[in-house]
Amino acid sequence: MTNTTERAARTESSARAPTSQTPTEQTLTTGPFPASRKVYTPGTRYPDVRVPHREIDLTPTVEMIGGLARHTPNPSVRVYDTGGPYTDPDAPLDLHAGLPHARPWLHNHPDLHTLPGATSAYTRAQNARADLADLRYPGAHTIRRARAGRTITQLQAARAGVITPEMEFVAIREALRQAEAFELRHQHPGNALGFQMPREITPEVVRAEIARGRAVLPANINHPELEPMIIGRAFRVKVNANIGNSAVKASVADEVEKLVWATRWGADTVMDLSTGKHIHQTREWIVRNSAVPIGTVPIYQALEKVGGVPEALTWDVYRDTLIEQAEQGVDYFTVHAGVRLAHLPLTVRRRTGIVSRGGSILARWCLAHHQENFLYTHFREICEIMAAFDVTFSLGDGLRPGSIEDANDAAQFAELDTLGELTKIAQELGVQTMIEGPGHVPLHLLQENVDRQLQVCGEAPFYTLGPLVTDVAPAYDHITSAVGAAVIGWMGVSMLCYVTPKEHLGLPDKNDVRDGVIAYRLAAHAADLAKGVPGAQARDNAISKARFEFRWEDQFNLALDPERARAFHDATLPAEAAKTAHFCSMCGPHFCSMKLSHDLRADDVLLGLQDKAREFREGGGELYRSAPEEVTT
Amino acid sequence: MTNTTERAARTESSARAPTSQTPTEQTLTTGPFPASRKVYTPGTRYPDVRVPHREIDLTPTVEMIGGLARHTPNPSVRVYDTGGPYTDPDAPLDLHAGLPHARPWLHNHPDLHTLPGATSAYTRAQNARADLADLRYPGAHTIRRARAGRTITQLQAARAGVITPEMEFVAIREALRQAEAFELRHQHPGNALGFQMPREITPEVVRAEIARGRAVLPANINHPELEPMIIGRAFRVKVNANIGNSAVKASVADEVEKLVWATRWGADTVMDLSTGKHIHQTREWIVRNSAVPIGTVPIYQALEKVGGVPEALTWDVYRDTLIEQAEQGVDYFTVHAGVRLAHLPLTVRRRTGIVSRGGSILARWCLAHHQENFLYTHFREICEIMAAFDVTFSLGDGLRPGSIEDANDAAQFAELDTLGELTKIAQELGVQTMIEGPGHVPLHLLQENVDRQLQVCGEAPFYTLGPLVTDVAPAYDHITSAVGAAVIGWMGVSMLCYVTPKEHLGLPDKNDVRDGVIAYRLAAHAADLAKGVPGAQARDNAISKARFEFRWEDQFNLALDPERARAFHDATLPAEAAKTAHFCSMCGPHFCSMKLSHDLRADDVLLGLQDKAREFREGGGELYRSAPEEVTT
Repeated sequence: MTNTTERAARTESSARAPTSQTPTEQTLTTGPFPASRKVYTPGTRYPDVRVPHREIDLTPTVEMIGGLARHTPNPSVRVYDTGGPYTDPDAPLDLHAGLPHARPWLHNHPDLHTLPGATSAYTRAQNARADLADLRYPGAHTIRRARAGRTITQLQAARAGVITPEMEFVAIREALRQAEAFELRHQHPGNALGFQMPREITPEVVRAEIARGRAVLPANINHPELEPMIIGRAFRVKVNANIGNSAVKASVADEVEKLVWATRWGADTVMDLSTGKHIHQTREWIVRNSAVPIGTVPIYQALEKVGGVPEALTWDVYRDTLIEQAEQGVDYFTVHAGVRLAHLPLTVRRRTGIVSRGGSILARWCLAHHQENFLYTHFREICEIMAAFDVTFSLGDGLRPGSIEDANDAAQFAELDTLGELTKIAQELGVQTMIEGPGHVPLHLLQENVDRQLQVCGEAPFYTLGPLVTDVAPAYDHITSAVGAAVIGWMGVSMLCYVTPKEHLGLPDKNDVRDGVIAYRLAAHAADLAKGVPGAQARDNAISKARFEFRWEDQFNLALDPERARAFHDATLPAEAAKTAHFCSMCGPHFCSMKLSHDLRADDVLLGLQDKAREFREGGGELYRSAPEEVTT
Repeated sequence: MTNTTERAARTESSARAPTSQTPTEQTLTTGPFPASRKVYTPGTRYPDVRVPHREIDLTPTVEMIGGLARHTPNPSVRVYDTGGPYTDPDAPLDLHAGLPHARPWLHNHPDLHTLPGATSAYTRAQNARADLADLRYPGAHTIRRARAGRTITQLQAARAGVITPEMEFVAIREALRQAEAFELRHQHPGNALGFQMPREITPEVVRAEIARGRAVLPANINHPELEPMIIGRAFRVKVNANIGNSAVKASVADEVEKLVWATRWGADTVMDLSTGKHIHQTREWIVRNSAVPIGTVPIYQALEKVGGVPEALTWDVYRDTLIEQAEQGVDYFTVHAGVRLAHLPLTVRRRTGIVSRGGSILARWCLAHHQENFLYTHFREICEIMAAFDVTFSLGDGLRPGSIEDANDAAQFAELDTLGELTKIAQELGVQTMIEGPGHVPLHLLQENVDRQLQVCGEAPFYTLGPLVTDVAPAYDHITSAVGAAVIGWMGVSMLCYVTPKEHLGLPDKNDVRDGVIAYRLAAHAADLAKGVPGAQARDNAISKARFEFRWEDQFNLALDPERARAFHDATLPAEAAKTAHFCSMCGPHFCSMKLSHDLRADDVLLGLQDKAREFREGGGELYRSAPEEVTT
């Protein structure tokens, strides 16, 4: 299934010898998608903005007209591209030096100052350990922080009326302009269910959406490698993929490859949920080599630092973890500050209790100490740290339902109300904020989730896990949840956290990650079509045109997963000639509806039809109302 | 992946030696699902009604209370079962004799008479050919037909106030009564979007729904092997799987195994779309060995009979094909009588023309002859034939959209209007009727499809192909379409025609069939939860309870695909001990939210929580409204 990319990886990779545990270019899947070119669009406000897209080149349409073959070129199709430099054969790749800086403007930012080194006590202790030398990321990383008294978050800039380079970047990225001659512009008007989608994405639209808290642009100032992206209802629905080692399985090289692999297939952000060994070192490798925002759940690492005993967690350990990760460049933090002591009794009679890892850790802490959640009591301090690095909040839903039965219950909505309070505080303090949502919810209860979240969180972007619309299909939960994800994306959710086929069962391997990401890419795209993202339908139109014209290669190349589309075709008709055949194995040549339909279009038939049509028009409008007996011609 | 079933197949199969092309028990996948028993419920009105369900036995819940293990038994869960005798180890299986007759009352039905043999000219010619002896189904098949002047369809009976044995059968089958002690009855009230779901499924509800044309019970009088099922909005959403050989691939044995395989995973009906060789003989093997309704598209075989040239089709050939298949016992026919000459000009500017095989065949015939579709002009005669055998109409949507761009266009809805006219005629003539629907439709245009269909077809059951909600994911179209299927099932569609991962690319193999059926079973179940089918949530509740209690075996056994769930778990933690572990590989033991959540429930903590809860209640209701600073306890 992965032959093409693996071959590409070998072609593109350098000759650096692999070390035992750390990643090398050989352990990565790189190289372009078939028939695809990377194109970069420069900014007009900021010349060092350089926005990547992918252009898929198509073959011409060949028609037989009066015995002569007429070739009509098909314009290339430009698509949103999350792959970063890894899918650009011309980009230099050196994992030990990190990705090139897509945000060079950070180097001389007047409101930032450069720290002499990490200020996190934990980071300094880790850096001092000789035994970790082999695991440590060897490249340079300059650590920056907001100058005292300066406001540096995208939210603060947006409110001050400033369009940052990041805002111009995402405006160009989202607008996704097709070639001037592009002929596939037809699009059904969307129905964004009460939301007014912008007709055109401009830097000013981006600024305005961020300013009103309706979009976030997660971009830590310590992540210059990032290609900025935006999460908000006015924009394309985004997909997050989770990676991370666990106590059961761990390897740094594996994690970096998972990052590259997940973004190759279309993950817009990646959450590193590692709970195993060497979390700090693994994360450094990941952030330095990631073109997408990295999210984390800092409480996981804090728990590791106190020996895995929730009761032993302290604000000081957590605080240092926030700083450690913010200095590394993590772009967003899941913070379960809504898991309040007062909400816990509401979970006792649940079918599946608390299913969020972070939520259960904090619930245990609250109960052991009979104290309010320290993330809640220290929330303003958390905000101040995050504002100094422009880390975005992903306010965690620690009490999300873990089963259909627990959906939309009192515990879930009590926490959501708290997240609403916290959103206001975070935004006041200049911190960009999105809100995490469920989980397991039947189809007819999805709307209530969106309605309540919009209301209590002031339209802050909603970021849901699925939701799974039934519990009965373990091993297929990428599908049960893609159903919920597509629908809730249409309803207004801005980012969808993927679920893999292994959810509830085990750790995903690479194939599971691919299955999960593609399932969510198609769900997000379905939501974009439904809410009416301008231009979203162009790719559907192009692939359908290719399909109807038996341009098999183009159909494969326009697919979300070109390799698998080709492999599935070749499983029945492997011969190269079959890729130009005017039928496929599904129906065979005699029964091919597409072929028959083409014959209908041949000029002579078409002329006949047009005569017929004129006759019908002249005969009056009641063509399709007459009873069966009347119209036999 | 299929070890368990393959092993089961070997265990259950008899010692009959396989012939070259015809099926034997060895070529089938049979045997029970893990921890499952087949149970049969007798009718009360009709003692020879014997309704199959599957009971999944569960292990007890083990709790440690004050240092002692307390075992609490979990009642078995009864589920709807499409597997037929193939999943019953006690059922005799002999493919050469056909399945036992689940409808013995047909043998002495007063309104039926037994024909001396087939009346179809084609059947008689085929039966006379010595060269086909090896391929021919060797068992007996008695052919019946309504006596002159007698009405025998389920619709006619229902209108006359008669509850037939088939109606009692499906009422028991749908009601799916759980054990008296069943503790998992909690269910979210559904939202059937304006439709009044029955609170309880009784034979009278079944009769009434059939009488008003809002449900069909496809059950040809020549298919006594059938276990009756019902298709209608008041009932569980059903799933159809397509099988069939094509000119590219063909084998009788393969087709029978596909039937058994598809129903094993949950197909409620199977359409035989064969277009290759020996369609007649293959179909006889299939119907004689099928416990589910078989649907066909008679125009496919008619086209084969005229050498694959659409223009050569005649009413006589088609008519004989209807009789041939009705005498074999086909339960429903797709008839593309709505593809009218007048509609064809509406398809000329489409992105993907006509993508229905049947639709394109008939369009070509209409244009070649410049005549109205002969299925339309002969519609009443078709009805008369079908009424004599109680074959149900599946009025085909030959002009369904084949791309997002073509969704909900004038051609599609013009045809739907015609199908509305035809529905009235068919029902008048006593023929049960359902309506086929698209296809490719973006999420926000699904509702219009349902609304229009309900309106113009008088609430006759709607049977859609997916729909796919985007065109961009070939190789994942079981997922793009499961999204549309789940949503449109919720909106009121009664049966969902599955799509496999190979759609648009090639012929599905067994694994594709399984992937497609399971994707659709979960979509149908999601729809059932949303529309509020009584008892639908019991299986979700049971699997969630098992998950929360780390009863891994029960979680696997309650899954739609127990084998794959187990295999995915074992991929990371294969040891048998891991199946009783209170964690899994996803988070490892320290980070297991379920484990932490259980600790929260241990009695001492629970008591603490209850004290706390009392304290909160006594302190007044404003628990979740206070600002962060105020509630630090």
